[in-house]
Amino acid sequence: MELSDLSRRCGEWLRGSGPDADIVMSSRIRLARNLARYPFLCRADERVRGEIERELRGVMKEIPLGSSQTYFDVGQLETLDRQFLVERQLISRELAESQGACGVCIADSETVSVMVNEEDHLRLQVFRSGFALDDCWNEISRIDDELESRVSYAFSSEFGYLTACPTNVGTGIRASVLLHLPALVMTKEIQKVFQAAQKISLAVRGLYGEGSQAMGDFYQFSNQVTLGKKEDDILGNLKSVIPSIIAYEKKVRQALVRENREKLHDQVARAFGVLRTAQTITSDETMQLLSSVRMGVHLGLIDDLELPTLNEIFLNTQPAHLQKLQNASLASGERNAARAGYIREKLAGADHTQN
Amino acid sequence: MELSDLSRRCGEWLRGSGPDADIVMSSRIRLARNLARYPFLCRADERVRGEIERELRGVMKEIPLGSSQTYFDVGQLETLDRQFLVERQLISRELAESQGACGVCIADSETVSVMVNEEDHLRLQVFRSGFALDDCWNEISRIDDELESRVSYAFSSEFGYLTACPTNVGTGIRASVLLHLPALVMTKEIQKVFQAAQKISLAVRGLYGEGSQAMGDFYQFSNQVTLGKKEDDILGNLKSVIPSIIAYEKKVRQALVRENREKLHDQVARAFGVLRTAQTITSDETMQLLSSVRMGVHLGLIDDLELPTLNEIFLNTQPAHLQKLQNASLASGERNAARAGYIREKLAGADHTQN
Repeated sequence: MELSDLSRRCGEWLRGSGPDADIVMSSRIRLARNLARYPFLCRADERVRGEIERELRGVMKEIPLGSSQTYFDVGQLETLDRQFLVERQLISRELAESQGACGVCIADSETVSVMVNEEDHLRLQVFRSGFALDDCWNEISRIDDELESRVSYAFSSEFGYLTACPTNVGTGIRASVLLHLPALVMTKEIQKVFQAAQKISLAVRGLYGEGSQAMGDFYQFSNQVTLGKKEDDILGNLKSVIPSIIAYEKKVRQALVRENREKLHDQVARAFGVLRTAQTITSDETMQLLSSVRMGVHLGLIDDLELPTLNEIFLNTQPAHLQKLQNASLASGERNAARAGYIREKLAGADHTQN
Repeated sequence: MELSDLSRRCGEWLRGSGPDADIVMSSRIRLARNLARYPFLCRADERVRGEIERELRGVMKEIPLGSSQTYFDVGQLETLDRQFLVERQLISRELAESQGACGVCIADSETVSVMVNEEDHLRLQVFRSGFALDDCWNEISRIDDELESRVSYAFSSEFGYLTACPTNVGTGIRASVLLHLPALVMTKEIQKVFQAAQKISLAVRGLYGEGSQAMGDFYQFSNQVTLGKKEDDILGNLKSVIPSIIAYEKKVRQALVRENREKLHDQVARAFGVLRTAQTITSDETMQLLSSVRMGVHLGLIDDLELPTLNEIFLNTQPAHLQKLQNASLASGERNAARAGYIREKLAGADHTQN
């Protein structure tokens, strides 16, 4: 598979068909792992870094991530291509910016990515559409077992898996779900959710993970604790809390529809109208308008528009994706025009607004 | 003709086909006249008022205003119907609010209206689409002559026609053109136009004349002086100045297209998008968005949308028109929803945005 193949489609996890996909965009689990016989990367020189990369690249060839997979030598990729992989969440911003030998092995379905030489020697990630942490867990455990049968992990019987950053020691697990919570944001009820999440040690972040701003009412909820708890308990915590947040968002949506249907419909319809006609549009505004439209689709305020179309626009209007699609390097103003053009094309001919 | 017949169509002067109709919505001349043998209305009691009304109603039956005409006893009309005539500019707000006997004789084409017992005994008005003051003048002179051959006007050889308010004494003429100046407003050049107009004694007002706010970038330019000048000179003044304002607006539009086409196109397209999708919309916002779209049509930024459609929306989204169309008395919130629905219907199926 070439990167250009990726740019022509969306990953499986963006197909919008998983459980509770109206509110849960995706579920993700990642595991941090290190090889016992090498130092952590912060202490490895270029030669050692290269050795680790070569070894793990070899190992990954033996482990099936799906029906087919591709290894990318990230160090050899252009900046735009790295950014492209970040936007698809297949690599982290840290890997995109790293110097020296590093790579990523990606299932062609984009449900699995294994980063080599990110912060740790190995970062395994599994994605699913909708609320599907168990599926993620089963798949990532399988890959983890396959790896563990081939390499010796840095492991302490006292602490568990050892990682470069102490916050990941123990299970090395971060499980997260990406929630779309426009009604809670609109009614400012989201603050209560943040407070509740904090109390039970869940982190809330923006779309692109750590340090990123929340955009378009999308929030990632993930566990903060990795040490002293079993994976089951960590997942169990999320699995017991997330359904309440989903139910809360649904309840508020229904209340909005009941008490303020016209205003809500107006907001949703205008967002759709602007997306279909704008001649220039920023990434932020796009995200905000898509967020409204997405909620409108789920509330039956917009007919005949499919979630995959929205997800595709969502993905492809990001800067690197746009430039890959246009096959050109574009300055910010040019991107805004290209973005508007792409969106108009995707939504053209549609007359979806319910009268 | 019944009022309900009017509500099913637009007046001739809104057909948008006159000279310079891209910038000049309409031209209008009105004459203020009083009968010599009655006191001014401010000094007339109810009985005298009634006599004047009966006499002039009779006279108007003899004077053809077009192929057909209708006399409305305004005192007998419901508030909504009076408001409806105000919105069509066929009667003034003053006549709509007046107590006691009063009426209006309207050419069924809506190009002529003769108000009886407004501020003066007679207020003659002639409208034309586009920049056509001479046509207005020829028509209104004919009607004025017809009237003068039947009644004796209050006239002084020293001052000219005598009127209730001294600002109308002399010729009793007010000639005005309604200009659409979005580019001058956008670039703030409109201030220079206001200053220039003031210097040559032109008044600048909003859409509904005296005391009204400018809405949707529409401005009425009219003469202020009626005394000591001939009608020809008063019209000549407007006829020489208005073309410069038209040329100025055109020049600025072209400059905007040249230097900032994308931004302009974006604004116009978004305005169109919102009009086609909004579920609730105020009168002010409608006017503002229609103003953008109107300019977009003239600059070729929106295809396949006709000026008469815009003018129809413009007219029919006003409060009384909306309620006549819906055949219901609507509160403000209901009007906003009905207005949005009407606009969506008018623009439905259209996919006019140039890509």
